[in-house]
Amino acid sequence: MLGSTGSIGTQTLQIAEEFPEQFRVVALTAGQNLDLLVQQIQRHQPELVALANADLLPELQQRLDALGTDRKRPQLVGGPDGLNIAASWESADLVVTGIVGCAGLLPTLAAVRAGKDLALANKETLIAAGPVVLPELKKSGSRLLPADSEHSAIFQCLQGTPWAENARLSTGVPTPGLRRIQLTASGGAFRDWKAEDLENATVADATSHPNWSMGRKITVDSASLMNKGLEVIEAHYLFGLDYDHIEIVIHPQSIIHSMIELADSSVLAQLGWPDMKLPILYCLSWPSRLETPWRRLDLTEVGQLSFRAPDPAKYPCMQLAYAAGRAGGTMPAVMNAANEEAVAQFLEEKIHFLDIPVVIEAACERHKADLIAHPQLEDVLAVDQWARMAVREQVKRGTTRVPLAALAA
Amino acid sequence: MLGSTGSIGTQTLQIAEEFPEQFRVVALTAGQNLDLLVQQIQRHQPELVALANADLLPELQQRLDALGTDRKRPQLVGGPDGLNIAASWESADLVVTGIVGCAGLLPTLAAVRAGKDLALANKETLIAAGPVVLPELKKSGSRLLPADSEHSAIFQCLQGTPWAENARLSTGVPTPGLRRIQLTASGGAFRDWKAEDLENATVADATSHPNWSMGRKITVDSASLMNKGLEVIEAHYLFGLDYDHIEIVIHPQSIIHSMIELADSSVLAQLGWPDMKLPILYCLSWPSRLETPWRRLDLTEVGQLSFRAPDPAKYPCMQLAYAAGRAGGTMPAVMNAANEEAVAQFLEEKIHFLDIPVVIEAACERHKADLIAHPQLEDVLAVDQWARMAVREQVKRGTTRVPLAALAA
Repeated sequence: MLGSTGSIGTQTLQIAEEFPEQFRVVALTAGQNLDLLVQQIQRHQPELVALANADLLPELQQRLDALGTDRKRPQLVGGPDGLNIAASWESADLVVTGIVGCAGLLPTLAAVRAGKDLALANKETLIAAGPVVLPELKKSGSRLLPADSEHSAIFQCLQGTPWAENARLSTGVPTPGLRRIQLTASGGAFRDWKAEDLENATVADATSHPNWSMGRKITVDSASLMNKGLEVIEAHYLFGLDYDHIEIVIHPQSIIHSMIELADSSVLAQLGWPDMKLPILYCLSWPSRLETPWRRLDLTEVGQLSFRAPDPAKYPCMQLAYAAGRAGGTMPAVMNAANEEAVAQFLEEKIHFLDIPVVIEAACERHKADLIAHPQLEDVLAVDQWARMAVREQVKRGTTRVPLAALAA
Repeated sequence: MLGSTGSIGTQTLQIAEEFPEQFRVVALTAGQNLDLLVQQIQRHQPELVALANADLLPELQQRLDALGTDRKRPQLVGGPDGLNIAASWESADLVVTGIVGCAGLLPTLAAVRAGKDLALANKETLIAAGPVVLPELKKSGSRLLPADSEHSAIFQCLQGTPWAENARLSTGVPTPGLRRIQLTASGGAFRDWKAEDLENATVADATSHPNWSMGRKITVDSASLMNKGLEVIEAHYLFGLDYDHIEIVIHPQSIIHSMIELADSSVLAQLGWPDMKLPILYCLSWPSRLETPWRRLDLTEVGQLSFRAPDPAKYPCMQLAYAAGRAGGTMPAVMNAANEEAVAQFLEEKIHFLDIPVVIEAACERHKADLIAHPQLEDVLAVDQWARMAVREQVKRGTTRVPLAALAA
């Protein structure tokens, strides 16, 4: 479990507790939430624990020592190498990648190279490094099982197509018979705001999601629809469809988690309450399904499901994501890193919500001349660093916000 | 094509025309619409044509003679034997059963015995004769592909489950991992009527369906929700679920054609415009899908999908169907035959819409003492005849309508 103390991590470990016969947790990695990590170690008794921040290793050791000696003690490792050791840990069959952002890329790649199957919750693996990861997947035979609720929905709907039968998971090859993907979007915190009212949006506004309980960064991405834009790029790499056939539909109730249209015009959808546990469980149990006592969907309780097309003028980040995806090569990596940095600056209240697309677009514009169509891993890491720096510099200089209408044009 | 001039028949032949490379029509059967039949013969040049009404054979022969001798002439047969010959015609790979009502049962059974795969649009085959047909299916290896839009939706959603992988089609064995079926119902002609206003319902009211263009008998069944009740029984035999796990949801837009809930609480749905051509095509192309230029679903155009539980007091026929299904054996055959006769009497304005459940219930009550748990074909045919007669007799005597509220209790 990469990122065991985060949102995906805690839910994955809940599942492991619910199904002790089926799953055993053999390795955990965490950042710095030692309180929760120690609890998790006590409960799951992993063989290995890796701390991203190696400086905290002595403290973790101390805390575990204080618990007494009646239980098996995990091996402790730290730093980036430690994460890679966990990601390729021998007794692991499947690696759940719950580390948010580009930090999750290297350990995820280590898991791929070790031939592990992946439950992919870290979008950036494909978004920033799709051109690097796809060939590695082919080489090692690792399978990418999508843990995002939207991609899981598509994956579930695709079972029984030639694609799933051949287990051609995530090779980026077009899926036979798959004509269109429709990713549903809650619309995020600002779904009922008028575009012009976004001038008054605060950090508190942007971090209160109406449907899903998620981390702060993803919640801001949801408000800007960047989250959905990133999922479009991820879907492109996972299912091999071109960008003209991956659409976004605003669906405020978040009950239909996504849809596919097949060649004959039939549409399949996966539905459920907004809860990440189901897509995570499906990654762990695939191709089987486990019996759960979880709350059953009741559409008569929901009453109505509604759908509308997203307003491009309100969601410039969505357009930036499509444009970066279509540009390909290193451009999605630049856009993703610029977004991570921009959101961080926003959460620190150094820029306004409406500045986020402005600084991302500036970084993408500057990168156009340097775009690498077929990047290596080093290229991806280099442009990632460059884009973050470019955003920081621009924020320091002070942004000159472009009017929203001009961005949409 | 059994029933080529009916609603299913004409749509199936349209598909054959749209996909001349994939499908060839080798045998047609029809009742008495000679005008349309002659057109179909000219267009599809079948090897065999069977007329249910053998008396019309000379006229058909004359009309075909009058067309000249430049085209291959089909072999003509008539009467019940003729239908059976068509249903087991050697060069047919798949038989589409579009004959409405119990009349479709015998030729469908002939097709099963001849080992043909079936595109089943005739509900009564399973509803009246499930206990007879299922063992025959096992014996001959015929596969039942559901052409009803609801059962097709379930069938499509089930692709990729162990059920579909094993091609254990329609053996009545519980489908592994399938926990619940939700059949969607438009609510029919009276969906926006208050229960008490049904006192004023006319034949014209009951035969104008809001969403689907279908035959008159099925449209009345849709208004009474008997249609959905029959589909519940059909789903029971097709997918092996008990009646507690097959539910009806009123969904006025008819966009979600049905849903399944899997063991882990995930719900899969199949969506599309209300059009029978897609489920028919899927039967013909399964397990593949053919590329169609048909109108693509646009949920932003639909805007809203709504759902509510059916009011039992308004839909006594629905309850009668569940009760008959649970009673099993010959009871569904009795209920189905009583319904056919009751609807016929209603269409002739001999009884009121609200009398339909009254006369059906009376027949079912009378049959309780004679129920055969494991019937043979002759038993099914005998109770079918008996139930029709029982309804006719009751109508002659004059019905004493039971208050709707009492029925619901």
